[in-house]
Amino acid sequence: MNGSQWASGKLQVFETMESEVRSYIRSFPTKFRRASGYRMWDTEGKEYVDFFSGAGALNYGHNPPEMKRLLIQYLQEDGISHSLDMATEAKERFLLRFGETILRPRGLDYKVMFPGPTGANSVESALKLARKATGRQTVMSFTNAFHGMTLGALAVTGNKFKRKGAGVPLHHTVTFPYDGYMGPSVNTLTYIENFLEDSGSGISLPAAVILETLQGEGGLQAASGPWLRGLANLCKRHGILMIVDDVQMGCGRTGTFFSFEPFGMEPDIVCLSKSIGGYGLPMALTLLKPELDLWEPGEHNGTFRGNNLAFVAAAEALSYWENDRFAKAIARKGEQLRSALLSLADRFGGEVRGRGLMQGIALEPGLAEKVCAAAFERGLVIETSGTDSEVVKVMPPLVIDPEGLDEGLAILRSSMQQVVEAMGAAAIR
Amino acid sequence: MNGSQWASGKLQVFETMESEVRSYIRSFPTKFRRASGYRMWDTEGKEYVDFFSGAGALNYGHNPPEMKRLLIQYLQEDGISHSLDMATEAKERFLLRFGETILRPRGLDYKVMFPGPTGANSVESALKLARKATGRQTVMSFTNAFHGMTLGALAVTGNKFKRKGAGVPLHHTVTFPYDGYMGPSVNTLTYIENFLEDSGSGISLPAAVILETLQGEGGLQAASGPWLRGLANLCKRHGILMIVDDVQMGCGRTGTFFSFEPFGMEPDIVCLSKSIGGYGLPMALTLLKPELDLWEPGEHNGTFRGNNLAFVAAAEALSYWENDRFAKAIARKGEQLRSALLSLADRFGGEVRGRGLMQGIALEPGLAEKVCAAAFERGLVIETSGTDSEVVKVMPPLVIDPEGLDEGLAILRSSMQQVVEAMGAAAIR
Amino acid sequence: MNGSQWASGKLQVFETMESEVRSYIRSFPTKFRRASGYRMWDTEGKEYVDFFSGAGALNYGHNPPEMKRLLIQYLQEDGISHSLDMATEAKERFLLRFGETILRPRGLDYKVMFPGPTGANSVESALKLARKATGRQTVMSFTNAFHGMTLGALAVTGNKFKRKGAGVPLHHTVTFPYDGYMGPSVNTLTYIENFLEDSGSGISLPAAVILETLQGEGGLQAASGPWLRGLANLCKRHGILMIVDDVQMGCGRTGTFFSFEPFGMEPDIVCLSKSIGGYGLPMALTLLKPELDLWEPGEHNGTFRGNNLAFVAAAEALSYWENDRFAKAIARKGEQLRSALLSLADRFGGEVRGRGLMQGIALEPGLAEKVCAAAFERGLVIETSGTDSEVVKVMPPLVIDPEGLDEGLAILRSSMQQVVEAMGAAAIR
Amino acid sequence: MNGSQWASGKLQVFETMESEVRSYIRSFPTKFRRASGYRMWDTEGKEYVDFFSGAGALNYGHNPPEMKRLLIQYLQEDGISHSLDMATEAKERFLLRFGETILRPRGLDYKVMFPGPTGANSVESALKLARKATGRQTVMSFTNAFHGMTLGALAVTGNKFKRKGAGVPLHHTVTFPYDGYMGPSVNTLTYIENFLEDSGSGISLPAAVILETLQGEGGLQAASGPWLRGLANLCKRHGILMIVDDVQMGCGRTGTFFSFEPFGMEPDIVCLSKSIGGYGLPMALTLLKPELDLWEPGEHNGTFRGNNLAFVAAAEALSYWENDRFAKAIARKGEQLRSALLSLADRFGGEVRGRGLMQGIALEPGLAEKVCAAAFERGLVIETSGTDSEVVKVMPPLVIDPEGLDEGLAILRSSMQQVVEAMGAAAIR
Repeated sequence: MNGSQWASGKLQVFETMESEVRSYIRSFPTKFRRASGYRMWDTEGKEYVDFFSGAGALNYGHNPPEMKRLLIQYLQEDGISHSLDMATEAKERFLLRFGETILRPRGLDYKVMFPGPTGANSVESALKLARKATGRQTVMSFTNAFHGMTLGALAVTGNKFKRKGAGVPLHHTVTFPYDGYMGPSVNTLTYIENFLEDSGSGISLPAAVILETLQGEGGLQAASGPWLRGLANLCKRHGILMIVDDVQMGCGRTGTFFSFEPFGMEPDIVCLSKSIGGYGLPMALTLLKPELDLWEPGEHNGTFRGNNLAFVAAAEALSYWENDRFAKAIARKGEQLRSALLSLADRFGGEVRGRGLMQGIALEPGLAEKVCAAAFERGLVIETSGTDSEVVKVMPPLVIDPEGLDEGLAILRSSMQQVVEAMGAAAIR
Repeated sequence: MNGSQWASGKLQVFETMESEVRSYIRSFPTKFRRASGYRMWDTEGKEYVDFFSGAGALNYGHNPPEMKRLLIQYLQEDGISHSLDMATEAKERFLLRFGETILRPRGLDYKVMFPGPTGANSVESALKLARKATGRQTVMSFTNAFHGMTLGALAVTGNKFKRKGAGVPLHHTVTFPYDGYMGPSVNTLTYIENFLEDSGSGISLPAAVILETLQGEGGLQAASGPWLRGLANLCKRHGILMIVDDVQMGCGRTGTFFSFEPFGMEPDIVCLSKSIGGYGLPMALTLLKPELDLWEPGEHNGTFRGNNLAFVAAAEALSYWENDRFAKAIARKGEQLRSALLSLADRFGGEVRGRGLMQGIALEPGLAEKVCAAAFERGLVIETSGTDSEVVKVMPPLVIDPEGLDEGLAILRSSMQQVVEAMGAAAIR
Repeated sequence: MNGSQWASGKLQVFETMESEVRSYIRSFPTKFRRASGYRMWDTEGKEYVDFFSGAGALNYGHNPPEMKRLLIQYLQEDGISHSLDMATEAKERFLLRFGETILRPRGLDYKVMFPGPTGANSVESALKLARKATGRQTVMSFTNAFHGMTLGALAVTGNKFKRKGAGVPLHHTVTFPYDGYMGPSVNTLTYIENFLEDSGSGISLPAAVILETLQGEGGLQAASGPWLRGLANLCKRHGILMIVDDVQMGCGRTGTFFSFEPFGMEPDIVCLSKSIGGYGLPMALTLLKPELDLWEPGEHNGTFRGNNLAFVAAAEALSYWENDRFAKAIARKGEQLRSALLSLADRFGGEVRGRGLMQGIALEPGLAEKVCAAAFERGLVIETSGTDSEVVKVMPPLVIDPEGLDEGLAILRSSMQQVVEAMGAAAIR
Repeated sequence: MNGSQWASGKLQVFETMESEVRSYIRSFPTKFRRASGYRMWDTEGKEYVDFFSGAGALNYGHNPPEMKRLLIQYLQEDGISHSLDMATEAKERFLLRFGETILRPRGLDYKVMFPGPTGANSVESALKLARKATGRQTVMSFTNAFHGMTLGALAVTGNKFKRKGAGVPLHHTVTFPYDGYMGPSVNTLTYIENFLEDSGSGISLPAAVILETLQGEGGLQAASGPWLRGLANLCKRHGILMIVDDVQMGCGRTGTFFSFEPFGMEPDIVCLSKSIGGYGLPMALTLLKPELDLWEPGEHNGTFRGNNLAFVAAAEALSYWENDRFAKAIARKGEQLRSALLSLADRFGGEVRGRGLMQGIALEPGLAEKVCAAAFERGLVIETSGTDSEVVKVMPPLVIDPEGLDEGLAILRSSMQQVVEAMGAAAIR
């Protein structure tokens, strides 16, 4: 699919000059110009509702005004733009705000590390640290996990197509079944523990387990509280470090700042990126328990760890977390979304998955992509999830208002209607 | 942690909250606020000359006014901030300008790939592509090379301390001696070719070779033109792809936009990052010959590939390359720098290395760090290079004027004088 | 080192000169001189019943007279002793006999490969061939599998202690749960198939699966017929090669020449060693389907592939398989053994496992080793199985007569009685 | 080449039933029956002089009478044939004789380990032990080295064709240039030491180096004494263990029992196999310094470590080393051989290599195989060496008499003459 029949030349520069690796431009074949809150406009003036949020980097919506004001002011005052890991005022303000607003109220005691400004870089740093701290090499990951595209992160990612892209075998990891993978009657933790304890299983004691509490790319499978707590206990009993990759699920996506808050867990290492920068600006954090801070200076580094525009926006974004109003609003909108999706499932079949403002509906293979394409034509930016793209994934900015949510859901409903009618009802599960 | 005697509490937030992995803050223990061109100011108003350029990300200086103007305007107009690999006006403008200003005049026919916005991500994508295109796994790299800190990039990096940080063995690579590594009388290419052609050498045919034409982190060793051309021929004869990592040496650092231009080479893949974003904003490119564009859509991806603020600044930065004035000015300032460094070597000993505005002076072990620390106290931001930090590395913004260059060099000279006097002349090579 | 209280100096040469790696000498601390059939004598004239069979290499008993006669004759006539893979009369006779007596009557069409004369070498050759034939790298193996101690074979072995001995990570393999591993209610095949078919499981399509139909070292777990057939079908559907390691279970140990005969399977590759040489002489075979015979000459080799004394004995040993009398006798003695073990379990607790003349009784941790030590004192050579040595493993020569079997079993019974009485009944499961 | 034009059906069983992997049968296409000393006979009564010695396993010639007598007697007395690592009288006698005759007179203090009965198994055990003892993973090996075909041994072997057969990447090793590899003017030790000491070379400190003092399969390159001693010193300075693979070069092949004796070295680990069994019977030893004997019982094992027929012959074979007559005779015959080969080189071109009774002549590519084929037709069994089979390798039994040596050399001379005449003198270097 290259979309050129719709594009009629307007995407020619991209089609000619850019590598075939480009992908979202194929799902959303238009040229964007402007955006605000949960709305986007292309160069032809067509308006879109955004149920995509820049793949999770725009939890606070497009171009939130107060952040914008501060960014402009910072630029006008010739604030330092790029500083690696030197000290700057902007970075200091972010650190202080992060401590006051996020860590202290939650009773969390983490040291903060600034890796290169992508989720994959945060994951790479977390894996290195876990291996260094334990002196072990193997890291456990889960079926359908997604943690990034650099070799270390790819090695803990489940998607075979993406793994194959490595061009080399990916080692030092072992994949275990995520919660629910073996059906509702099998607790995969039992199996995992057997493997770890059995001296004949071939698996040496891992350095760490890395997981998402809800699999954003892997089909919106959510781990249950008991399973997560059980896993945390298992890790503690065996001296295995727990790494939560909250790159997509953190920053409020599931209703709390960290996705693991409702479960009474305290991971050893947490990866943050995407919406941490507030304004969609590249930034990433790795949080680590103080006793794990065994790094030598410069043992993991990178150039763009001091993106001060991101620090400015990120510090401001934390204002949303100064009290519980934002979290409560996400919860309400999450229920509104749940209800609408259940109604869709009732009407068209499918399975509703996820939590907070990361929910979706799993459809028969091939269907979800058609639904998203139809929705895009009607002015809704929405993508699929799952290794077989089988889930329609609803991920609006957290700041969306209930009306905007309804507006997008109405487009989704009519798009499903259209696709289903075109295919015949029998195609729906 | 050193430097605390100067810091007197002003860096307390960083020392308390940030991981021990932080490093530049230890060499430059102050809190920066503002910067312009080749000058920086800390929160106490102290002024610094910048011979560091954000580790090469600020070739066009701090906050260049025209880029700043365009960034503010883009923010004010609610331009799309973050777009992954969707089409935007800002990205289109960058692509067009890159084609017109850089590729076409040099007769280069590359497809453009946007990896995650760091040099390491570009290197990871280049390695993946080379392995995919050839169906082979081994990549050749060189002694003292530096290509990044994620597992794939680390595997082609020579520094043992950084490699050890991986926590796992690094495979699928083979290290060969860089030009000059075996002394002036041995052409390392002969040895490399023997190894490749001998059916008993244990090395299977590599997918690619990756190299810097001048080793920025590895001690400013510069490969000669004949060696580079010989390596290119060797690659052609054996069907090995050539990847030039121009992350630090590109964007004019050595005098031409690409560091390899003077040598009549045309690498199969080129990695760019650091100064490509113009304003120190995170961005990276991977350039590839059209026949290598075998990617499947999404086979390598990442969230922050659509940093539109970077696209806005990057497009404007290319104005410097519309004619040959900028290149000529770099050449003149490079000669000015060479002459000053040779005079230093004449006075204090040491070996002058590098080319363009990436030059330095190699000193006895332990000395270069002292010189840089003394210079910082006198208001010069400058770092070392080399796996044993044995080189004082002069890397000012390319836009520095001759007076600024002289100002910084005078500080460097007096700093060396001070260190040498403190140690006694015998310590100098 | 234990057992020295019995040894009283007679093992001094071994204790002084031999490496600590020696092991069976610790379980059977005497110096053997002579053996015949199922009886052994040490240098002090003490007689032992053999329920160990040289770890499976002596299925035809010690020094069977007709083989002995032929070996002496071959030596007297200056027959070629060592011939690598040159043609010799002795090797030709073996090949012809193996075709006539084993392959043809079973309708099996295999090419015969002679690897180095150990089971591990056969396994290494099988893995190489499977990878070459499929162009894939991953090999599936099972929990508690044992396939050998060289790096390739060790990588498909489950025992963590033995794996750790590698000193390097073991790659290109994935361990799956053997039949029964997840309890009686979970069919592990379902789980395996999920993993193979799910595009998000992280496991690329394997080249092959390697398995024992009954795990000789791994605790005498026997796979069921339906599970084995299901696995064979799964392999066929996915184009995965099936390698049966019959090194210990072949040559009649479970009642048929190949252990897989009762299940209607036809593996792609079969590994044989141990008793294939007839007289305990080093020899190994790798059988492969003709369409897999993609080897280049010499692509896998080794010096001792032409042990002609072994060929002489091996050819003669096949006489046992010229009709079904031998198989029927094994079956009868297998039932006799089953019945005796069930009676022991009834009396002392424990779980009876295995089939044919490879059966045992699983006891509480720590007990089996005590039982075997007590039995040795009473004149029975018998060892444990299982990664925690939890199984008493009864593996007499297949030629043992019912009286000999009873004699050994009586010693076993009284040894269990003694151990149990010493420990108190509560220690028994 | 399959030789069937000469074989006229007599090798049909092998061609039909045996895998394509067979190789020596293609070079020596006849069916052997009988052998004695340095002579062999095929089933048609044709006599051959043996310059091949079973690839080095028959240093004491075929069927030496005293060993034969003892083997027959052992069989007649029902001596234990197969005993794993239990104690037997035959094994004890071997150990005592090895201590008295070999270790003590040379002042060598080694513990003796019995790995599986092949050279590859000994190498695998040596690599495991070196990694365990140092806690490091990388092992250094050399260009054109050959150490065996199992995955661990293959990883330190240089031959690309054989490495490719692994079907998986071979890791944890690094190949360095052997003595002479970079031409006579470059001391490869300097290069190796640079790599080890340079913190930017990408190579972490190795566990061990493994080497042959003369490369038997790799083209008869001999390392010089100064180079070997320099390597030993380098290892000592860096805490790297030295493993000498004396599988082919040991047992007197180069004139002394161990090949390294003339150089005043004392390797940490020594691998022996091939002729150690005396009569061509499968056997292998790994010798290790007592302080390295860190094995847990059974940490490396295998079934055929107790081949008592081999122990009987091996103990007797050591009689050759009770005084210095045997060594002196080898030296004399080595000179006789050298002189003859130099005369051949003088007449036909080529380079004479090797020492003791392991010498050869390197010819133009393609020539050596033709010479060996012509020699075989004339009744001389002789093979090539070198990854491109470029060397005619003369390796007679050490017990050959001067007349036998002359007889074989005369056949070699006339074979070269024939080949050269057929090709024209220009083909000779």
